[in-house]
Amino acid sequence: MIEDKTPHRTSLADLGEFGLIDRLTKGFEIHNPSTLKGVGDDAAVMDFKNKKTVVSTDLLIEGVHFDLSYVPLKHLGYKSVVVNVSDIYAMNATATQITVSIAVSNRFPLEALEELYAGIRLACKHYKVDLVGGDTTSSTRGLIISVTAIGEAEASDLVYRNGAQPNDLVVLTGDIGGAYMGLQILEREKAVFQVNPNSQPDIEMYSYILERQLKPEARKDIPPLLKQLGVKPTAMMDVSDGLSSEILHICKQSGVGCRLYEDKIPLDPQVISTCEEFNLDSTTIALSGGEDYELLFTIAQADYDKIKGNPNFTVIGYITDKSEGVNLVTRAGQFIPIIAKGWNALTINN
Amino acid sequence: MIEDKTPHRTSLADLGEFGLIDRLTKGFEIHNPSTLKGVGDDAAVMDFKNKKTVVSTDLLIEGVHFDLSYVPLKHLGYKSVVVNVSDIYAMNATATQITVSIAVSNRFPLEALEELYAGIRLACKHYKVDLVGGDTTSSTRGLIISVTAIGEAEASDLVYRNGAQPNDLVVLTGDIGGAYMGLQILEREKAVFQVNPNSQPDIEMYSYILERQLKPEARKDIPPLLKQLGVKPTAMMDVSDGLSSEILHICKQSGVGCRLYEDKIPLDPQVISTCEEFNLDSTTIALSGGEDYELLFTIAQADYDKIKGNPNFTVIGYITDKSEGVNLVTRAGQFIPIIAKGWNALTINN
Repeated sequence: MIEDKTPHRTSLADLGEFGLIDRLTKGFEIHNPSTLKGVGDDAAVMDFKNKKTVVSTDLLIEGVHFDLSYVPLKHLGYKSVVVNVSDIYAMNATATQITVSIAVSNRFPLEALEELYAGIRLACKHYKVDLVGGDTTSSTRGLIISVTAIGEAEASDLVYRNGAQPNDLVVLTGDIGGAYMGLQILEREKAVFQVNPNSQPDIEMYSYILERQLKPEARKDIPPLLKQLGVKPTAMMDVSDGLSSEILHICKQSGVGCRLYEDKIPLDPQVISTCEEFNLDSTTIALSGGEDYELLFTIAQADYDKIKGNPNFTVIGYITDKSEGVNLVTRAGQFIPIIAKGWNALTINN
Repeated sequence: MIEDKTPHRTSLADLGEFGLIDRLTKGFEIHNPSTLKGVGDDAAVMDFKNKKTVVSTDLLIEGVHFDLSYVPLKHLGYKSVVVNVSDIYAMNATATQITVSIAVSNRFPLEALEELYAGIRLACKHYKVDLVGGDTTSSTRGLIISVTAIGEAEASDLVYRNGAQPNDLVVLTGDIGGAYMGLQILEREKAVFQVNPNSQPDIEMYSYILERQLKPEARKDIPPLLKQLGVKPTAMMDVSDGLSSEILHICKQSGVGCRLYEDKIPLDPQVISTCEEFNLDSTTIALSGGEDYELLFTIAQADYDKIKGNPNFTVIGYITDKSEGVNLVTRAGQFIPIIAKGWNALTINN
């Protein structure tokens, strides 16, 4: 008997919109008591009792935010949840629900969307968020994903971007620059593959930075850790566009300046070695890279002892008066004004 | 002096993402005490106190959901809010906030997006909802709009799709079929224009159905009216995909059947005359048309006296046991099973 090795492709048109939604949302569990009604009505219903509700949303477009020639759909589904819940943690809140809308062209069979939703389901399980709604429609070209994340917090726990004060310490979780360098590796391998489809990429030495790009994690652990340590940041945001862009937001909204120290910026050895290989300056990459989904926050100096020595945190500078500007102090002791060079989605098409 | 009649076009790339957001969100007012923090942080913050939170989301794609060759951007902005808040009213809830994400190709200048946001702002004002967040990015082709609507309701006021009981009356607000016939007129005029760009369309006789398509309104008035009349529907949803699709949802989720009467379906005279002109059956259009954003609901027979004679409501049938199926009773007394022929976005590309 001859085996049919063609992967099974089920046409979306045969299923219809509601059949598709049924298939894709199967196997999603509810993790939060605040979820009263999930998928299947005109709207989802939540009960946050006396807590505050936080909401954030992101739009991901094929060809702009992701390239399906090297991003597996399951990873893409996972990452599209991560980038959204990251914004909720950046408020020092708990992510509880998401809605996911997708638009697909008819080149996507059901099986491809099931892969995407397998990644979304995995992320929902890991981050304990409930899929409560969405929209499913067709696109004229490519895949479009829109995710809205919903969360909850006690009013007294919420942290905005505008509370940084002079002399506060600037703290970063984890390390940065990895996601951007991972993308450089993927782009290079894609170019090599286009020239020689038989090339076998040797990417093991880049495993950390590839994971930072393809399967980033949001810092769900940080809000409860800060609570446990008795630290409430004065300002916080997540590092999605790049450290320079984010610190400028905090400084602008708080009406302050700051000094960041080049030698304090936490970089993984793989970032440093890959930057050398690409002849790129690792500080520039750390400042402008983006997509690391670490948290950047400020704390009162009095709280320093509470975070000192914790491997999750690196103090990278301090807040100053606004008149001093936003500066990077280089290893040579030079002051360089930080300007936004973060990834700007709007310039890509130009 | 020679006047420069070229409309001013400001490139989005020159503004940057954050400059663009600042420009577009200027002039939006906050209407609700539940909005604690709107645009400008990682997430919006709301306080619904002891009320329940409801959330719904929609994705609108150029070339699938709208055609910019005949839909003015301001109308499109308005409509993209309407289709979302309509879902909140369909829960018998009050719409309070929206997030709006857009992706645009670089063929759109700032001035075009300002038109779109002028429509969004107008709808926010009319529906008393606050713009609290969103995402702004580039697309590889065309305009993509993703709106998430948030609302609030007392737990006891919420109406789901699954509460219809045998003998309940099926009630429709307003009239239906107009939005679909308006679209037929627009498509015909577009075709005429493509053949003869100098043709002057005479569309005054279609003003009502064109408005139904281009500037629909959601039934914000219905939840408070029902409350005032002392009526709580047993099931409710909005008519976005078409009456046949919606009644099937209610019957399926409630585990019941129903009879709708052809001669009771409310149609505007312009819908009837335009159907005749296009040689279309007006009942088919009413069943399958969609995009009318009226509300379809069921009430206990005991509540009939409370809505009787109210010009907002038409009783179009009643709920039966599931075994009797979902049927249309024609003017001739025939029973015709209702099947979903509503507008299915997923078949458009096939």
